[in-house]
Amino acid sequence: MNSRADAAPEQGRRLAILAEGYLDFHHGKTAVSILRYKPDEVVAVIDRAHAGASVRDVLGIDVDVPIVASVEDTFQWSPSAVLIGIAPRGGGLPEEWRPQLLQALEHGLDVISGLHYMLNDDAELVAAARGTNARLVDVRQPPADIEVAELAPHRSGATVVTFVGSDCAVGKMTAALEINAAARRRGLSSEFVATGQTGIMLEGSGITVDRVIGDFMSGAVEGLVNEAASRADWVFVEGQGSLLHPAYSGVTLALLHGSSPDAMVLVHQAGLRQIDEYPVVIPPLDRLVRIYEDAAGWIKPAPVVAIALNTRGLDAEETRRAIAEAHSATGLPVADPVKSGADELVSAIVQSSRRTGP
Amino acid sequence: MNSRADAAPEQGRRLAILAEGYLDFHHGKTAVSILRYKPDEVVAVIDRAHAGASVRDVLGIDVDVPIVASVEDTFQWSPSAVLIGIAPRGGGLPEEWRPQLLQALEHGLDVISGLHYMLNDDAELVAAARGTNARLVDVRQPPADIEVAELAPHRSGATVVTFVGSDCAVGKMTAALEINAAARRRGLSSEFVATGQTGIMLEGSGITVDRVIGDFMSGAVEGLVNEAASRADWVFVEGQGSLLHPAYSGVTLALLHGSSPDAMVLVHQAGLRQIDEYPVVIPPLDRLVRIYEDAAGWIKPAPVVAIALNTRGLDAEETRRAIAEAHSATGLPVADPVKSGADELVSAIVQSSRRTGP
Repeated sequence: MNSRADAAPEQGRRLAILAEGYLDFHHGKTAVSILRYKPDEVVAVIDRAHAGASVRDVLGIDVDVPIVASVEDTFQWSPSAVLIGIAPRGGGLPEEWRPQLLQALEHGLDVISGLHYMLNDDAELVAAARGTNARLVDVRQPPADIEVAELAPHRSGATVVTFVGSDCAVGKMTAALEINAAARRRGLSSEFVATGQTGIMLEGSGITVDRVIGDFMSGAVEGLVNEAASRADWVFVEGQGSLLHPAYSGVTLALLHGSSPDAMVLVHQAGLRQIDEYPVVIPPLDRLVRIYEDAAGWIKPAPVVAIALNTRGLDAEETRRAIAEAHSATGLPVADPVKSGADELVSAIVQSSRRTGP
Repeated sequence: MNSRADAAPEQGRRLAILAEGYLDFHHGKTAVSILRYKPDEVVAVIDRAHAGASVRDVLGIDVDVPIVASVEDTFQWSPSAVLIGIAPRGGGLPEEWRPQLLQALEHGLDVISGLHYMLNDDAELVAAARGTNARLVDVRQPPADIEVAELAPHRSGATVVTFVGSDCAVGKMTAALEINAAARRRGLSSEFVATGQTGIMLEGSGITVDRVIGDFMSGAVEGLVNEAASRADWVFVEGQGSLLHPAYSGVTLALLHGSSPDAMVLVHQAGLRQIDEYPVVIPPLDRLVRIYEDAAGWIKPAPVVAIALNTRGLDAEETRRAIAEAHSATGLPVADPVKSGADELVSAIVQSSRRTGP
């Protein structure tokens, strides 16, 4: 059900990432994640505002990737595809990108998109792609055969850990990826379940839950999770949105209940006090832990066993203090998996699961 | 945005309701609601299993509508449309109905459907409809122009009351319709907001939230509610599903947050202890009240101000006892609006709103 072979990282894929006007950690989180996890596949980033600068300067990610002003400027590196690396609110296609995408297609480059706007429904783009045999890859298009959730238990012996957060774009996917990688290095049998477009672009499988029709969201997640749990002993499920988010809380709860977790990891960005773009206060961390445990428990109890704290932008001392405060507020293990590695969080997950049983 | 003129009750509409094999209060809730609220529009019900019996006998609804075995048997009453009156799990089109629908279309009858399965995407049905100029009305198809929720406050002075429930099919729509009708009889300016296919079939406007793509569910409800609140002082919002439902809880939370209620009415079916078809226990009513108040309060506080208790199947003494128990468990006003009218619940809503302010 979840095979999205056409979105899978290919041998020799050479990506030009379109991040026009949005090359930052929030709106450009797709660009940032591809640069962080697949740097070898990226030949250039397109962002007129930062053209000439380097990714290292603008984002602080330690990769040698140039930033240029247009699709045309990337042709010198022979890209195989343009990947749309940003997520505008509402997921529409900004009209100013159309000439760039047409130029890419006319040059024979594929276009890979995670927008709600389906490139394959756009007659002009479809015609341009047909002309050069280029492909339009809509990563956000869910499969057609999703069923209503059945609350079918996952394989006994597998432990499902769902990543939940205080807001969108706080680092849920990153924490899950880092923890999955650390678990594998430790020799554990583990899988990452992608539930958003960036995760799918990195992993080549998954379903963008926020694109699924309401009645089938939980079922989509249940299918992905139970399939992963049939193969792996540890299943790390990328969360979406936040239960406190006025627009996306329904997606968050569907994912939480559909994944039927045995444990949760709470992801938070240090210092964040309000939902981005909405006048909703983020409560203290101990209350946030209770909110997620309550909501999971309406159907099946699951504890929050650790906190992944995103301390981006804080210096060493501020980071140490933020982690200490989060630990003292909740009594839970806290770490920033990007700064200090995910080993501590893997240990916390494994130990708490031993205590409570899967 | 929410105008669905093609689903609106028309002058002189003559409906044959297809309820094949599902003429009961649970799966046939669309049929039951049309029979209850638009009996004059119904010429016959189609259900082979009960053919020859009357609606009064099978459902206990006091209307003179015959039950027949096939679409063909309804032709004697010159129906203008076949309305699919049942909701199979997953919302697919049972293949055994296809010959009946084709026969209706070939006879020039419209087909009105609330299924997830879109009749207008079915080449065979589309061709048959074209042949006789019949219409295929997919009530569940949401409009194309839904936006992401903005948490835009509704008109000050309007009070939004959202109906929430212990499970699907417990009577949320019915309670909201009865309360809206009683409020209007009292001279209040009020509107009912339909969020499901049956409500839309009755009212001619609304959006089936469970059919909307995840990211846009809250926004769909926000648009409907704010439009109604611009016209009416009291807005009664039909709820969907339950926060305890493993498959549909995400739809429920999106609707709850999208409607941004000032107050809630909890709807429950007396005696129900478990989510239908799922091993999830429904907690005591006072806990259920807390669950909904907690979830609403993550974004904006709203109290549960009354309980609409569905006492279908209970005798007078059992009904009295069930109502007394629900009242004593929660301290809230409790009534069955179908059995005793909705006046008491309207009073409770108006009084509690005076206390807390809109």
